[in-house]
Amino acid sequence: MDLKQYLQERKTLIDATLEDYLPATAGVGARVVEAMRYSLLAGGKRLRPILCLAAAEAVGGRLADALPVACGLEMIHTYSLIHDDLPAMDNDDLRRGRPTCHKQFDEATAILAGDGLLTEAFAAMVRAAAHRPDQEAVVLDVIRLIADAAGHQGMVGGQMADLEAEGQPADLPQVEAIHHLKTGALLTAAVRAGALLGGGTSEDVARLTNYGKFFGLIFQITDDLLDIEGESSEMGKPTGMDAVRQKATYPGVLGVAQARERARRLVDQALQELEPLGAAAEPLRQIVNYLLVRRT
Amino acid sequence: MDLKQYLQERKTLIDATLEDYLPATAGVGARVVEAMRYSLLAGGKRLRPILCLAAAEAVGGRLADALPVACGLEMIHTYSLIHDDLPAMDNDDLRRGRPTCHKQFDEATAILAGDGLLTEAFAAMVRAAAHRPDQEAVVLDVIRLIADAAGHQGMVGGQMADLEAEGQPADLPQVEAIHHLKTGALLTAAVRAGALLGGGTSEDVARLTNYGKFFGLIFQITDDLLDIEGESSEMGKPTGMDAVRQKATYPGVLGVAQARERARRLVDQALQELEPLGAAAEPLRQIVNYLLVRRT
Repeated sequence: MDLKQYLQERKTLIDATLEDYLPATAGVGARVVEAMRYSLLAGGKRLRPILCLAAAEAVGGRLADALPVACGLEMIHTYSLIHDDLPAMDNDDLRRGRPTCHKQFDEATAILAGDGLLTEAFAAMVRAAAHRPDQEAVVLDVIRLIADAAGHQGMVGGQMADLEAEGQPADLPQVEAIHHLKTGALLTAAVRAGALLGGGTSEDVARLTNYGKFFGLIFQITDDLLDIEGESSEMGKPTGMDAVRQKATYPGVLGVAQARERARRLVDQALQELEPLGAAAEPLRQIVNYLLVRRT
Repeated sequence: MDLKQYLQERKTLIDATLEDYLPATAGVGARVVEAMRYSLLAGGKRLRPILCLAAAEAVGGRLADALPVACGLEMIHTYSLIHDDLPAMDNDDLRRGRPTCHKQFDEATAILAGDGLLTEAFAAMVRAAAHRPDQEAVVLDVIRLIADAAGHQGMVGGQMADLEAEGQPADLPQVEAIHHLKTGALLTAAVRAGALLGGGTSEDVARLTNYGKFFGLIFQITDDLLDIEGESSEMGKPTGMDAVRQKATYPGVLGVAQARERARRLVDQALQELEPLGAAAEPLRQIVNYLLVRRT
């Protein structure tokens, strides 16, 4: 398979569905919808929804059964970017090569746009049961696991810990704990949700959840490395900010060479989890390998 | 029935369940949980969850079946207060007689606490199906209707419109449209959700939904009146702020006497909807009557 083409096709499907779920409106409060669409349709990599769909397919499931939850995951991811960029948080001006939401609109609108996307994410996820009454219990389980991964026990808790840790000396267990919550939990939930919605056996779901955990760690290590080695022009945002903010990072604790080596070993472990799934897991194999060479 | 005692008993049940759903923690990101609990357990009237439970009982349902959703509604209400109080929004220092969340903690923590409560609300609502597999479809419908009422088509859209309308001249249809979205939609959803979870017939659900719509309008009119006539010391926040902010209000458009008369007529209409439900709807009758004399 051609990974580049695969990712492009999936991105097209996801973008079209997001557009369908959140059309422009001229009614009362139209400005907040404009801001939600500005950030949601700004053209991210769509990594979380792509992982969710790929996990559903890896267990022989249908894309359509996972698509609403995949879109909900992207809405949650986008809301977290909007709120993290706010002046009271990371105070970032650029995101995906464009002004951040509060720069393009204003702070109040950006707060509300994030709130609106987080809320709409759950409305989107409910749609997964619309044509599958037999899937109602699974969809409820998935909503619960994604809420847990996104909330105070997951992403929100991780962002809190990350802010608290700024300027504090950190060791590896602390860095891993924060990053697992901040980024890893939702990536893992994306893969697990896909496996559940695709009708995977409990062994498949367990293996894919492990893959998701490794994926989250690798993603964060390579994200930290990109902040040091990446090109600001390719990434659409300034690099080198972790050092400025004295953030706890893998290369900061391990050094660049060791951090890279650690990512490589984790990829091997992730691939091992996929072995029993055969050819259906090929996209998940290529995506995790791609993390090692990504430039954005 | 003794309304005061009824409200107190329900508040006790709801507070205990909220405490159970969101216990204090000492783990990573504990600060955000502390802030979530600070605002959630600050002792509000618990109006939305009480309405939800009362609607379930009005159709002969069990409290336990509606309780998780009732608590989710209170989490959504509390998150909206935290975010509305932020400096970029209404910039309020006092809420329920105590410093607002961003005053007690800081802005970043308050944004995250709101995000955490909104997310946890959906995790709470999923619990409604935990002991009732036959209720899964109803719970999914309820999550959808509450998400719609809370999001850009409801509360979030209303808050956006309210901010946009500040300082602009407004007529009655505009005031009603904004208030319906900002406050009425979630109140109506609370009643409708209770009726659905309690197993009401479609006629019951339709009547209670109408009751909820009237309730939302009356609540907003009396809220506007309290901002003019209420005692700051009883309400735990400054009064007279609508005028300072040039907000679009009912008394601002209709005058105090006409606004009060309008509320009275709407109570009659709400009571009419409850007639066929008999004695089981007595709490809903007394609660809507109480709006006319409330002082907080």
